[in-house]
Parts: sequence; structure tokens; C-alpha cells
Amino acid sequence: MAEDSSRPPVGGTTVAGALARGASDLRLRAVDGGFDLSIGATLVLRHRPDDPAIFVGEGRADVDMYRGNYFLSDRLDARIPLRHAMIDGATVALAATPGGDPLLALTVEGGALALTALADRLNRLWLRCVAQPGERLWGGGEQLSYFDLAGRRFPLWTSEPGVGRDKSTLLTFQCDRDGRSGGDYWNTNYPQPTYLSSRHYALHLDTTAYACFDFRDPAFHEIEAWEIPARIELFAADRFAELVGILSTRFGRQPPLPAWAYEGAILGLKQGMESFARMEAIIAAGAVVTGLWCEDWVGLRETSFGKRLFWDWKANDVRYPALRERIAALNARGIRFLGYVNPYLAVDGDLYVEAVDAGLLARRLDADEPYIVDFGEFDCGIVDFTNPAAANWFAERVIGREMLDIGLSGWMADFGEYLPTDVRLHDGTDGMLAHNAWPTIWAEVNARAIASREQTGEALFFMRAGYTDVGRYCPLFWAGDQSVDFSRHDGIGTVVRAALSSGIVGNAYHHSDLGGYTSLYGNVRTAELLMRWSELCAFSPVMRSHEGNRPDDNLQIDGDPDVLAHFAAMTKVHARLAPYVAALCEEAVANGLPLQRPLFLDWEDDADCWGIETQYGYGRDLIVAPVIEAGVDSRAVYLPAGATWVHLWSGDRYAGGSTVETPAPFGRPPVFWREGSRHAELFRSLMHG
Amino acid sequence: MAEDSSRPPVGGTTVAGALARGASDLRLRAVDGGFDLSIGATLVLRHRPDDPAIFVGEGRADVDMYRGNYFLSDRLDARIPLRHAMIDGATVALAATPGGDPLLALTVEGGALALTALADRLNRLWLRCVAQPGERLWGGGEQLSYFDLAGRRFPLWTSEPGVGRDKSTLLTFQCDRDGRSGGDYWNTNYPQPTYLSSRHYALHLDTTAYACFDFRDPAFHEIEAWEIPARIELFAADRFAELVGILSTRFGRQPPLPAWAYEGAILGLKQGMESFARMEAIIAAGAVVTGLWCEDWVGLRETSFGKRLFWDWKANDVRYPALRERIAALNARGIRFLGYVNPYLAVDGDLYVEAVDAGLLARRLDADEPYIVDFGEFDCGIVDFTNPAAANWFAERVIGREMLDIGLSGWMADFGEYLPTDVRLHDGTDGMLAHNAWPTIWAEVNARAIASREQTGEALFFMRAGYTDVGRYCPLFWAGDQSVDFSRHDGIGTVVRAALSSGIVGNAYHHSDLGGYTSLYGNVRTAELLMRWSELCAFSPVMRSHEGNRPDDNLQIDGDPDVLAHFAAMTKVHARLAPYVAALCEEAVANGLPLQRPLFLDWEDDADCWGIETQYGYGRDLIVAPVIEAGVDSRAVYLPAGATWVHLWSGDRYAGGSTVETPAPFGRPPVFWREGSRHAELFRSLMHG
Repeated sequence: MAEDSSRPPVGGTTVAGALARGASDLRLRAVDGGFDLSIGATLVLRHRPDDPAIFVGEGRADVDMYRGNYFLSDRLDARIPLRHAMIDGATVALAATPGGDPLLALTVEGGALALTALADRLNRLWLRCVAQPGERLWGGGEQLSYFDLAGRRFPLWTSEPGVGRDKSTLLTFQCDRDGRSGGDYWNTNYPQPTYLSSRHYALHLDTTAYACFDFRDPAFHEIEAWEIPARIELFAADRFAELVGILSTRFGRQPPLPAWAYEGAILGLKQGMESFARMEAIIAAGAVVTGLWCEDWVGLRETSFGKRLFWDWKANDVRYPALRERIAALNARGIRFLGYVNPYLAVDGDLYVEAVDAGLLARRLDADEPYIVDFGEFDCGIVDFTNPAAANWFAERVIGREMLDIGLSGWMADFGEYLPTDVRLHDGTDGMLAHNAWPTIWAEVNARAIASREQTGEALFFMRAGYTDVGRYCPLFWAGDQSVDFSRHDGIGTVVRAALSSGIVGNAYHHSDLGGYTSLYGNVRTAELLMRWSELCAFSPVMRSHEGNRPDDNLQIDGDPDVLAHFAAMTKVHARLAPYVAALCEEAVANGLPLQRPLFLDWEDDADCWGIETQYGYGRDLIVAPVIEAGVDSRAVYLPAGATWVHLWSGDRYAGGSTVETPAPFGRPPVFWREGSRHAELFRSLMHG
Repeated sequence: MAEDSSRPPVGGTTVAGALARGASDLRLRAVDGGFDLSIGATLVLRHRPDDPAIFVGEGRADVDMYRGNYFLSDRLDARIPLRHAMIDGATVALAATPGGDPLLALTVEGGALALTALADRLNRLWLRCVAQPGERLWGGGEQLSYFDLAGRRFPLWTSEPGVGRDKSTLLTFQCDRDGRSGGDYWNTNYPQPTYLSSRHYALHLDTTAYACFDFRDPAFHEIEAWEIPARIELFAADRFAELVGILSTRFGRQPPLPAWAYEGAILGLKQGMESFARMEAIIAAGAVVTGLWCEDWVGLRETSFGKRLFWDWKANDVRYPALRERIAALNARGIRFLGYVNPYLAVDGDLYVEAVDAGLLARRLDADEPYIVDFGEFDCGIVDFTNPAAANWFAERVIGREMLDIGLSGWMADFGEYLPTDVRLHDGTDGMLAHNAWPTIWAEVNARAIASREQTGEALFFMRAGYTDVGRYCPLFWAGDQSVDFSRHDGIGTVVRAALSSGIVGNAYHHSDLGGYTSLYGNVRTAELLMRWSELCAFSPVMRSHEGNRPDDNLQIDGDPDVLAHFAAMTKVHARLAPYVAALCEEAVANGLPLQRPLFLDWEDDADCWGIETQYGYGRDLIVAPVIEAGVDSRAVYLPAGATWVHLWSGDRYAGGSTVETPAPFGRPPVFWREGSRHAELFRSLMHG
């Protein structure tokens, strides 16, 4: 085994130490009738009477929603520049004019600015943070289209991500026309009002209100929130890896992935009992399988979108007879069984009746009856998790007894993005503030159920929805519902950006639906797509296949001998990487670093790494450049300066700091390992198959 | 001849008298710490400290333009509710807070509020006018999609109107994708910041800045302008017809149409010398022709959009040899010749060189050279009409000598919407303020040329672009470039709404391209469309055919014997109506009433007329309900209460106040005349052919 000769990226700084450093470094200084706010040597806010950085206002949200696609606009009544600053120690009182009543107070408190509105009507805040030429910005939660956010505007509101997500494509047009569901580059299941700047600091808004990051102006970043947030948190560190570690501590350090989740593939099959036979055939073809995921364990419902699940969360005895015994038999062979759940209850299911009887559902504002949501040809109630009795009921009665107790080791914890804004909740929270909070609340219910069975770190659920603090509860994300194609804004390539963006706000584990999900308007999977996605997933923490929304219309991993053979080969690569992934999980637990990461996290002294969005470091020792374009048999790969890189399949060595056009035949995705890695032997063994 | 037994619609009120009445009726009254502004008994502004009606602000316009399609957004810095009103006689000083510096002064002055900004930075104004349930709103210049503006938002910025104009259609998508040109419901060549309310008043912003009418809020109409306008003008009258007359006086009473323009059809042909032979064949088929319009008189240029003209404004001797003599020969037969001109000069033409040498072109802000505009595969300079020498040169040298002096009796005065906002003009006007003013300036240059030859009311130009005061100069509008189809937002039906909306802000004469203009992506004319459009034009002031942007791909009026026979028959109907149209022109000159008008202009006591947008009164004595849908052979027609109506083709009589499903075979569009009309004999004669 080769010794690792270079210093670890995070160095000796403990995360706790770094946090303390950030906090103590926040400095407020009166300047020219205004003030500067810096973290360490980095100027974040520059406020002057003639160029104010802080604005408050009044607005009324206009919310238009159709099946999880939100169209928000603001009826703005006022936007007041707070030009006049009165500084008293750690507090700034801000007024519109000299002598005018102060409207907002800012207080430096720990690593944050605490905000206090001093007038009743105020429900809007805008901050203008210092921008610098060439500055890069990352974050915003899980972003599918752009990792570097500079130059664009990002509304932050959890929703359907859209199908097509590109107004220039026919698919987007068709989805917009027929279902208002085409989406745009910024739509995401998992927004988060946190950004990292290439100036080595991060800013987070402590709010669940609608927010927006506008990075279009060369002079400033405009941060908007539809309430006066309690706090604006600031973080800084000398190295990006350290900064990401700090954010992971702030937003929730995840437990390690269970080994079964990365030691083989998880097969997504939803054909009732036929799923078991198909699994055996896939194993017989040479695939390494450690999980069988049957989301149809609850039964099916046919809709025009495709086969949907029956949203009444318990095993369907007709579709899966004797499931408990089946699961036990699988477990004995080292194969876990996974299911599906979401926070809604179909009105024609038994659990809905139970929840109604116990008063556990969210209610309408305009009538004393459950709020019913249209999910596309069927209606559901919303379990009101702000009611402790409802959250407990869902964790214990539903997830605990119907899922964990019959042997499920994991599930897709779907949705969380649809909470209507005109809903009446048990704890009185306004829907506009509860909406973005919902994914995290939903994650907590799932985590609570797992903890109740003492299976934290062993049972696994995965979510697409998220918001601030979701990583505190959710052990694994998936990249949502890609279209089954190579399209720029909704295809396979969005998975890479999703992993990078969610990773740097503290989420270590990410994966995607192998093969993509959404097949509409004749857009169907090609063999090429399935094979490229298998390659991508092999070099991801979790390799889980999905049959998609229209299984019968689309090629499946077991639908073609070549595709199946390729998939099986990729599962072997994935399984062989398990010891390396185990080491990355240890690192994640210790330092909060994501397994899939931007190159600059480990190689920030090479500025050429900063703009790379379609490659990732898989840990520090692998550079992965998945093929995300159709019809190519090679791709350019940038190798960071500061190391020598070895091509995984040929053993050819390359000096870092260069771009290498790398052959990419099926089964040989462009991957390089770092010479000197302590995992060199493992990597070298992969070359020899 | 039957005597007209009912009173004339405008009664004895003179327009001048009405104006004076409106002015004297503007009343400002202090109420509850704020004020009310009324015109007569009609409350227009209700300003209170806790519910202010007036806001000022600061913003920076973000302008993105591609070939006449504008994408504007505002980077808003401030929006200050002016809650505190200090009233002193006819003046109100408004401040944000009690004791704060006044930021705006309003003074009631004549029939208007004069506005004065009291702080330098202010460049935005919002007004909230009183809204009432069920209130209808009309105006906004020439609106193609909606006549009643209630419930929608209308940006007011002259531009291309878009192709498709409906985000749910494939054509709009294709145009957006390939040329950013799909447009939307509010895009128009001719916006105007004037609205009429069903509450019998009108409001006009005296500004050429970008403005927006937002009629979505049930509590108020929000009027926005990107400067502090000099004045907000208010008008009121007891009857709509009177109010429209007042607006016609305000915005420019047009001269009568020349008789030749409505006594027969104007054939639009652009096939060089072949045009003359085709005209003869069309006349031989029975058509009544009083004009030949050859827009290709300047020669052609081939582009991917279709055949475009060569923008160097003089007769092309190769395409039209001996044009002067040809025109004289036509004139001797009672046929006028019309051409085409626009305010741009192609860089590869002779006039461009002449204009550059004389320093007559608009210049770049960032370089001392002419501003060049891309018109789609060719480039042009912009004649700078703010330079008196340039305006004179264009009127005298171009229109005078190259057009009128060789015998042209009319022309399409195209464009006017494209003035870039980052242009340097001779008189120093900011491009953001010059842009909307340009169509009116362009109209004035054309009118000046005609006046210089003493041909006002005899020579005729027609425009699609417009803005406030354009009717003072432009004698005729056409409805722009419809797609060659029946589509809701870009087809034949938009012509009716365009006529109604432009008519009520004082423009008497309107017409359209018979057959439509834009044929893209395989969208081509059907025989049905051509025939329906012939019917519509027969009952319009001017019946002018157009070959469209792609003549070779599209059916023409002489391309099919049935279509030609139908067209010829319709020209006869049109010609037979000439005495009636002459009477309508007299009325327009006297009272400012448009020839094509909403039913409520003459029948406002029948409130069922107020919502009708697809029929029009053609004068007071005809109700025209053109067929604007494909595949129908009848349509519903509403007949106003207060008269008995006679079906033009059958003589059947109907009591007003009812809807009549009316047969509409080709050649018999649904038209009714008012029993008792002094033109009854003429109308009756049409029934007998």
C-alpha cells in the first residue's frame, strides 16, 4: 500500500475551533456616516448613506400553485433604503432619513447579525453584499442547472423542479402548456438560503420565508427575504474544505452510510412479485446486489402521467403477499428490502380515515375540514407535522409499525415540497413560512422513526426535498426526477451539479435515479443513456436503479443483454470501491466533507478548478468525469495541479494542471486516481478487472 | 331615403365645451389626514396615511432587445409610500413621514395634476387609483388581445407585437426559441398610457417613459411610470361618446380619409412589373380597385424570414422601370399608387451614405459613429429626427422628392418601434424617454412631407406604430402583422380588438392586412382565412390586401378562382358602402368618433354591450360581427337594445337587446343595420346585390 504523502485537506483545525474563529472575527466598523461589516479581512457589507446596503419593505405575496409548480410574485408596497445608520457598540439602528424613526436594528452576536424590525408592517428585507469582479458563488441548496451561481438570480422556494427546465426545448414547452410543469433553471426540490463565495466566506439567512439570491449585478449581491429574518449568519475560513466543514456542523452532520448501501447495487423494480424473479435474473447476470427497492410495495394506481403508487402506507398483500417473510429471506442472503413513503395520505386509503378521525391532518383556512391536495388525478390529505401527535403517529404508527417492523431497511421519503401556503396548521405557523420548512420537518419524522427502532446509521431513507437543516435528519439525498435524456437542464448532467451544490452546504451523501425518471411526450430511455447513468452511479455513494414513471415504455436495465451486462460490470466496480467509500464516509463523519465534491475543495490553490461543474472529486483521491453527453466516445478531463494522476483503466500517468482528452468507451468512464493515494492498490486492481 | 329619427349620439355638447367641463370639475379635498381627488362625482384617488395612493422611487432599467422584441426589467432601489400629505389650496406636498422632507408636489392645474419631484434621485412613480367591483377598463393604445383590460397587467412600451403571442401555442414557442419573438398578450406596436373607465372618466399619463397599467388588484389600479411624469391628465363626461370625442381632441383629430381610400380596394402586390398584369386580371374578375400598393417599389432583399424590401427609399428602376409614367397612367384611370417607407436606411443603400455625410444619423453612446441596428440579416442606420435638419431631409429629400413628387398617393410608414435605448440623439434626449416618443415623431415627419405638397387629406400613409399624439399626424392605422391564421392572440380576430382599442383613444381610421402577414414554420393561409378576412375588410374603412412575408408559400387573392370571385364581390360591397363611410368620416372630423367602435359607444345604456369585443359598430347604424373562427358557418351576434335591427342579407328584423345566431356563409358576414337609419336605402340595396 502506498503511503499518503500529502497533508490532509482540512488540516488540524477542528470544526468547532473554526466556528469559534468565524464568530469572533465578525467586525462592525463605523465609516463615512455608514459602516463596514467584515468577517476576518473580508468585507461583506459596505453601507453608506448614498449607497445603502440594507432595505426594508412591505409586500404581499401572490401565490399561484399547480401540482407542486409554484408561481410567486410580490405585490410590493414599499422598499425603503435605510440610508441612515446609528452605531452604538455592536448594534446599528437604521433609519430612512437622519432623525427619522429607526426601522431596523442589527446586532453583532456570535457569528451572526441579529435583526430586529422596529416597525410593525415590515415584512421584506434586502441586503446588498459586496461583489467583486470574477467572484464565484456556490450554494443555494441543491441546484440542478448551475453550480456557480454568479450572474444569475435564484429564487429559493421548495417546489417541483420542472420537466425540461429550459424554455428553449419542446419538452419544456409541452409540459408548461399541459401542466404548467416545465420549470426553469432555478427550480429545485431543495433550496437553501446559503451561499459560499470564492472570497472564502459563507452567508446564511436564518429564515424559512421565500428568499432570493440575485447575483446579476456586478456591484453587489442582492439577498431578498419575505420576512425580516431573525439572523444573518456569516462563516469564514482560510480553506474551502474548512468552510464546508463548518457548514456541515451548522446544518447537521450526517451519520455514516450503512455499508450495505454502497457494497452493491440497489435494484429499483416495481412489478409486484415479478420483481423478485427479475432480481434473481439480474444477479445471475453477474450484478452485485445488496438491496431490492420496490416502491410499489403499497400497490399501484394508474394515471395519465404513468403508473403511480397507492398512497396508503402499508404493505399491499395482493401485490406483495407475505412480504415480511420475503424480506427476512432476502436479508438472510445479505439483500435489504426498501419501500416508499411520502407525507400525504390518499383520501381513498385506510390511513386517511384514521388520521381524519384522530384530527391529524392540516386544515383549510376557509373551512373546518382537511385541506385536500390534487396530486394529478387523485386527492390527498396532508399530515400536519406541526401537531406533535400527528408527527408521532406518522413516525410510530406508519413508518415504525408498517415499515420498519416488517423489515424494511430503507425507503424513498418522497415529496415535502407541496405544502400549500393557504393551509391552517396546528401550531399556527403561516403557510408562507411553513412551506420551505416542511422538507426538514418531514425528514425529522423519518429520522425519529428510525431512531425509535435504534436503526440510525443502519436503516436508510432518501429524499429529494430539502431546506436548511435537512441534513441534520436526512441521511441521503437523491437528485430528483431527471428526464430520461442527456438534456442540459433536466438530463443526466444535472445530477453532477446537484451533488456538488448540495454537498458544499454540508450534505455528504448524494445519488440519483439510475436511468432517470421522467418519460413524457415520447421521450424515452436509450441504451446509451442507461449505460452512461450506470457508469455515473458506479462512482457515486449509492447505485440505485429506477424503472421511471412509465416502465413499460422505457428500456430497463434487464431489458437488453448488453445493457444488463454493462450494468452488472458497473455494479462490480461499485462494490470494489466499497473500502474507499467507507473511508470517505469516515471522513464525512469527522469533517463534514461530501463524498462527491467540487475539485476546488481539495485543490483550491489551482484556480482552474474553480469553474469546473461536470467533474467531481470522489473524495480527494479520485477525479470522476462522467459522460453526460450523447454520441461521444471521449471527453476532456481537467486534472488538478499539485498531484500526478493515473488513468483508472489504462494506468497512464498525467501531470496535474492539464486537460486530458480521455477515451470513454462504454464501461470505461473517465476516472483518474491520485498517485500516492493510500488506496492506490485498490484503484490499480480495478484496471485488471 | 328614410329619415333618421333618433338623436345623434354626441348630442349638442361641443368637444371644447366638454373639455372645459372636465377641467373645471377636478376637485381636491382634504380627508382624514389625506385627500380625495375627484373628477365631477367620480372619486379617482383616495389617499390616506395608512393606505397611500402615491409612491415614488428609484430604479435602474434593465433593457434587453433583440430585433424589436424588448425584455425590460427594473432594478428597484426604492419605493417610498408618500403617506403624509400637506394640502395648501390646489397643491399637495407629499412626504414619507410626518415632518419628513416633501418628495413630491401635486398641483391641480386645468384638467390635470401637475407633478413636481422634490428630490433629485426620484425616477419612478406609482399611483393607485380607485377600483370598483365590475369596473371595466379600456385603452392602453392599440391592444391586440384584450379590449377590456380589467384583471390584467399591461406594460406600455412600443415594440414588435410578437408572433403567436400565446405561450401555449407551438408557433409562439418556435418564435421565442429561434428569435425571442413569440411575444405576449400585451405586446403592441402602439401603446399609450391612457385608459377609460366604465366609471365615465379617463386618465392619461403625460410621459414617454416606460409605463405600466396593472389592473389585477381588486382594490386599486396601479399605474407605474419610469420617470415622474409632468402631468396626470383626467377627463370625464356623462356619455362615453363624449369622452372619446374629448380624447380625440386631446390626442389629435385626424383629417377625413380621402375618398379614393374607401371607394374601392387597394391591392397589395409586390411582384415588380408583374404586379400590373395581376391587377388587371383582378379588375377583370370584377373587383373594384382604387389603389395599387407595391411595397417592393424600392426593390427586394431575400432573407430567411422571407422576401424583405431594400431599405433605400427611391423607386427601383430595374424592378419598376418608368414608374412615374406608370403611376400617371394609373391615376388617369382613378387608381392610386402606393409605396413603402420606414425610418431606417440600409447601410448598403445610397441614402445611407448621403445621411452619414450630412451627419443625420443617430449615434452610438460609446463611440462617435452611427448606431447600427440589426433588422435580421441586414443592418441599418437610424435617421435622427430630433435633429431638425434630419427630419427636414427625410420629409423633403426622401418622402417629398422620391415619393410624392413621382406620384405616390400613399405608403405604409412602417416601424418606429425599434429605437434603441442606448442611442445618442441630437437633442440629447435619453433613449429611455425617446423610445416611446419615436412613433409620433416618425408620424410627424410623414405628415410634414404631405403638408409640404399640400396633400393633407388626399395623400395617405398608414402606420402600425404609435404612441400618445400619433393621431395628430397619422391619418390611418393598420393592425400590424397578424399571423395568417385564426389564432386567438395573433390571428384575424385581433384586428377587431385593435380597431376598438385604438379607436377610443381618438383614432378614427383603422384597417388591417387582408389575409394577414406573418407566415412562419409552415403556418400558411387557407382559402377560408382569405375569404373571412375579405369580409372583415369590406366592412372596414380601408380594404387593402397584402401578400404577406412569404408570398410564394401562401395563397393569394388571385391564386384561386373561388377566392378571387369572393374577393371581387366583397370589393363591390365595400365600394357600395362608400357614401355611408363618407358620412362616418364627416362625423369623425366633427366629433372624433372612430368609424369602428365598441357597441357601448352608441348604446351605453345597454350594459350588455360593454363586454363585447368581437363585434363592432361601424358607425351607429351598422353592427358588424365578422367571422373570426375557422370552420363555422354561423355566429352569435348581440344586437343592442334601443333599436330594431335588420339583417343585411335577408332583411329579417330583430328587436335589440337579444343575441341572434346568424348564418354566415362565405360572402354573407353577419351584419345588421339599424331600422330608421338615414342610410337604410343604401343598406337595403346591398341585399339585392
